[in-house]
Amino acid sequence: MSNGRLLIVSGPSGSGKDTILKKVFERVPEVKFSISSITRPMRPGEVEGKKYNFVSREYFEEMIKNDLLLEYNNYVGNYYGTPRGPVDEVIKNGGEIIIEVDVNGARNIKNKVADAVSVFIMPPSFEVLKARLTGRGTDNEEVIKQRLDAALAEIACAEQYDYIVVNDNLEEAVEDFITIIKTDRLSVKRQKYLINEVLKKC
Amino acid sequence: MSNGRLLIVSGPSGSGKDTILKKVFERVPEVKFSISSITRPMRPGEVEGKKYNFVSREYFEEMIKNDLLLEYNNYVGNYYGTPRGPVDEVIKNGGEIIIEVDVNGARNIKNKVADAVSVFIMPPSFEVLKARLTGRGTDNEEVIKQRLDAALAEIACAEQYDYIVVNDNLEEAVEDFITIIKTDRLSVKRQKYLINEVLKKC
Repeated sequence: MSNGRLLIVSGPSGSGKDTILKKVFERVPEVKFSISSITRPMRPGEVEGKKYNFVSREYFEEMIKNDLLLEYNNYVGNYYGTPRGPVDEVIKNGGEIIIEVDVNGARNIKNKVADAVSVFIMPPSFEVLKARLTGRGTDNEEVIKQRLDAALAEIACAEQYDYIVVNDNLEEAVEDFITIIKTDRLSVKRQKYLINEVLKKC
Repeated sequence: MSNGRLLIVSGPSGSGKDTILKKVFERVPEVKFSISSITRPMRPGEVEGKKYNFVSREYFEEMIKNDLLLEYNNYVGNYYGTPRGPVDEVIKNGGEIIIEVDVNGARNIKNKVADAVSVFIMPPSFEVLKARLTGRGTDNEEVIKQRLDAALAEIACAEQYDYIVVNDNLEEAVEDFITIIKTDRLSVKRQKYLINEVLKKC
């Protein structure tokens, strides 16, 4: 892989991760989003090729066999995975690509792409998290409790990430995220060529 | 050391490092500067306790003996070094402190403070570097050539740093430097306490 960067982003339900990423893609439009391949049926409102590519089970298993996935998972009978090709392509061309994935997926990807930069998006407090998960209105207490427990289990893994963006104020969280992208562009890994450019003129 | 950060900054003569740092300290005044201890005599225009503490040879050798320096060097008979105390103090209190040091000093400090963040400030090209070193006017060709060779030798070591800030446009270079400081504040190392804050409320 060349001097682009893979960014891994995770965050529990209630972290506001999707809203933050939407604004990041609007403001830094050259950053790409990694589209997951999944085998579950399309749901109302979903669009092929936006967040997911909807593929057949056979196609997915072929990808596994040929090592074409950076990570994959089987969740209640359906496969979810990150195709390696588009990620390699963006990085080879010096760009950035964001993979949105849970804490297990993040760990698996980091094992394959050691220099990936990982960001965990977090609610500012337990109270705010609970309020956000309750505020959706339609769910009963048992469902809310399950979602809260899942969120807390993810937060307990936040230490494995490189950065934490706290989503208290949305605008600040978006700016923090963009700051991480900008700083990464200053890393030696991505600017090594400059050293040789200055030296080769001697 | 706690959750502050030591920032190591290097850059050859002609990189504009001093001008950049001056503006950084103006705009992010909470960031501290590590004052070096040196044994050479004070020069006209220098002020005790600004960039340097002027100390006696005996005092300096006592600091060496008691391991009170993060790094030190002997250059044409005079000692130059970085006292450990003020650095530890700032980091313990969660702040940032910048050490300005050459490539050898940077390597020595990184060996002692593994999680220090290092930034190399670089001219945009060989031509600009040469023009900046020549432009001072008063020096003869031999002196300029020596300075140029020394600068190129430093640039050849830039790969050991975490970040490169190219000083083409001063304003952009200052902003880049501040972006690195801001991003570092989002690192897990410095925000680990937040994870526990959210979780402990369960």
